[in-house]
Amino acid sequence: MKKLEMMPVHMAVDKSVKIIGKLKEIEMKDIGSAIGYYLSEPVEVKFDVPPYTKSTVDGYAVRAENVLGATRETPVTLQVVGESSMGKVTTYTLNDGEAQYVPTGGMLPDGANAMVMIEDTDLGKEDVKVYKPTTIGSNMIYKGDDLKTGDTGVKSGVCLTSRHVGLLAALGISSVKVYKKPTVAIIATGDELIQLGDTPTGSQIFDTNTHSLKALCVSYGLEVVYADVVNDDFGAICEKIRVASKKADLLLMSGGSSVGEKDMTVDAVMTLPGAQKIVHGLAFKPGKPTLIVKADDVVVLGLPGHPVSALMVMDTVGRRILDEVWNTNIPKHHRVKGVLTGAVKPADGRDSCQMVTVKKDGHVYKVTPHHGKSGMISWIGHSDGYIVAEHKGGVLPEGTNVTVYLWDNNSKLIEDDWV
Amino acid sequence: MKKLEMMPVHMAVDKSVKIIGKLKEIEMKDIGSAIGYYLSEPVEVKFDVPPYTKSTVDGYAVRAENVLGATRETPVTLQVVGESSMGKVTTYTLNDGEAQYVPTGGMLPDGANAMVMIEDTDLGKEDVKVYKPTTIGSNMIYKGDDLKTGDTGVKSGVCLTSRHVGLLAALGISSVKVYKKPTVAIIATGDELIQLGDTPTGSQIFDTNTHSLKALCVSYGLEVVYADVVNDDFGAICEKIRVASKKADLLLMSGGSSVGEKDMTVDAVMTLPGAQKIVHGLAFKPGKPTLIVKADDVVVLGLPGHPVSALMVMDTVGRRILDEVWNTNIPKHHRVKGVLTGAVKPADGRDSCQMVTVKKDGHVYKVTPHHGKSGMISWIGHSDGYIVAEHKGGVLPEGTNVTVYLWDNNSKLIEDDWV
Repeated sequence: MKKLEMMPVHMAVDKSVKIIGKLKEIEMKDIGSAIGYYLSEPVEVKFDVPPYTKSTVDGYAVRAENVLGATRETPVTLQVVGESSMGKVTTYTLNDGEAQYVPTGGMLPDGANAMVMIEDTDLGKEDVKVYKPTTIGSNMIYKGDDLKTGDTGVKSGVCLTSRHVGLLAALGISSVKVYKKPTVAIIATGDELIQLGDTPTGSQIFDTNTHSLKALCVSYGLEVVYADVVNDDFGAICEKIRVASKKADLLLMSGGSSVGEKDMTVDAVMTLPGAQKIVHGLAFKPGKPTLIVKADDVVVLGLPGHPVSALMVMDTVGRRILDEVWNTNIPKHHRVKGVLTGAVKPADGRDSCQMVTVKKDGHVYKVTPHHGKSGMISWIGHSDGYIVAEHKGGVLPEGTNVTVYLWDNNSKLIEDDWV
Repeated sequence: MKKLEMMPVHMAVDKSVKIIGKLKEIEMKDIGSAIGYYLSEPVEVKFDVPPYTKSTVDGYAVRAENVLGATRETPVTLQVVGESSMGKVTTYTLNDGEAQYVPTGGMLPDGANAMVMIEDTDLGKEDVKVYKPTTIGSNMIYKGDDLKTGDTGVKSGVCLTSRHVGLLAALGISSVKVYKKPTVAIIATGDELIQLGDTPTGSQIFDTNTHSLKALCVSYGLEVVYADVVNDDFGAICEKIRVASKKADLLLMSGGSSVGEKDMTVDAVMTLPGAQKIVHGLAFKPGKPTLIVKADDVVVLGLPGHPVSALMVMDTVGRRILDEVWNTNIPKHHRVKGVLTGAVKPADGRDSCQMVTVKKDGHVYKVTPHHGKSGMISWIGHSDGYIVAEHKGGVLPEGTNVTVYLWDNNSKLIEDDWV
């Protein structure tokens, strides 16, 4: 019988990056759909920000030297000379003894060097009483003070968020060059698989992995361009793999990647042009039969057939390869630190993911491992997350401090925000 | 001059929930697009899981009592009687002294009560040597052991993740009833706003908020169905608001919600049928002029006009209202705990969001507050997150321990995962 390798996960990821490389294809993206993408070049500022000297308050543009001694008891009275309209050019030049109304964001007239807040004034018929002194540059921003034409607005390599979209829009930029994310294909193999809506007979089960892996990839911000189910038929598997390899950058295969009689995934994947086996067999539970192959047109990740295992390997090993090779910026899991309520034993020679439930007891997070059989699927819906038991560490006894990776990024277990 | 209220954020959220209510419209969702939605009713199991007694390993189905004394030195030899094919019904009944090959996930024949792993056997011509004893129920799952017909597969009120999609698919369920998420409209007001691609003159600036707020809402998993810019013209604002109120559940307005001369948002919003003012003015920096109105067709959230402030109020106050009223399950920010490198002073009487940069120095996160002018936009691209300085706490001196809410959920500042 053939044997699987037992490669540690970090070595598998390193080897994958070394052989596949850092894939840096570039595409243009509208700023509205660029969140989570990395800029492939810096964005240059084309217009000064602000493009004019502007007020940061509702109030009066003045010459600071005119209101030096102003107090509530001894206000300074200035003549009001019109107002600054939003979006218009202000052509008036302010003289000594004059004030001009400027709303927040409005343009200061030439000659003015400070703003007085409206709260510190009283408007008369044609004049305004100022009750407080101000200093040069107060409550205003000079033209180009924020960003100057020719400055770098956003640096190359930045991962774009809604904040950057705001910044780019403020700079008048509607599209940017970013690194392309991989498109994904999913093929589930197995004679036993039937479609949702059908009625299972004998040892048939519903195809689960194309649905759950697609959902996981979508939650990563990736587009799934192909998903299909195929019987354990070598020719049929080869054909589907060939089709998928033409459509997607990353092909996820579920099932058939072990070394049993019916495990044809490896041989089928190796028929792809340029196929180079990187990893077959991980020192990781679940995920022993994990397969990583680089071919000319596609990278193939062979996952376990069991739905729970497939999701866990994708969400641990798969996400790492995505982040390292394609810079996909997949959101990280929230974590809580807690205390084990029961012992956890890693698998022989393998780092083990152990599903757990978490209960908050006062200030302590109590972490209960799930010791059901490995084939159970119901439990994945009830667990709160997982811990990793390193095989080197041996058994983790009750009371051990552990880090739990939470499944949900809005789990009720995450401490409440500040309000 | 009219004055704004100074309502604390938690009171504003509570009042909003009380007046708007918990909105629980129901819709059917395909499981592939149901991630992040809350189930509105429990999902019942229609078929036993597994639907047959199944093996969790590649190996031989046996009667445990036949291999009691098996060792490497004294193997037990059993007659091989065919094999279990994936997806097929196994009709054979196993007798004493017999074994049947069953792959992982395959169906056990009647009469068998345990599996022996293939690693612990050697296949001969028509028989198999077994080197290890097994116990009843080992390496197998009985029909319905995981979930039984009539059980609750996923509870009502669960927020669906890719794990639940897997579980639902395994149950043969392709669509579920969930609570609808709000659709969003965005209107930015201001005579000074021009479109991306135009060239600013005078005190014109690029419309930023429709872009950044849309990006933020999309990152929340919400659909933005309408976005437009309108001049400071009362009739035009009323008309756009009316159109938007017919299209969306939540209307975000940016700008014009304060009490200045040109601030027409409040009056315009109050022309909507059934308009009821919930909040106008928050004890929160930024966000003093925040407006919350419930109308018959829409909930309106009036945000500050400044892009940085609009994003911050939406991402703090707005997200709370979304989560409370519509159960939107917006991903929470990752946090790190750090030490201030400089003092932070909350605004008078207002809890203040202070943007910060964070540097890891050994094991300590050093948190540096940004003390630029409030009108600056460049800084939002450079900051790593924000802290909240409560006004009750007074000045936070250098060295204070603070919690930083990180902007990015894949920030390099988040501790590396386990490999």
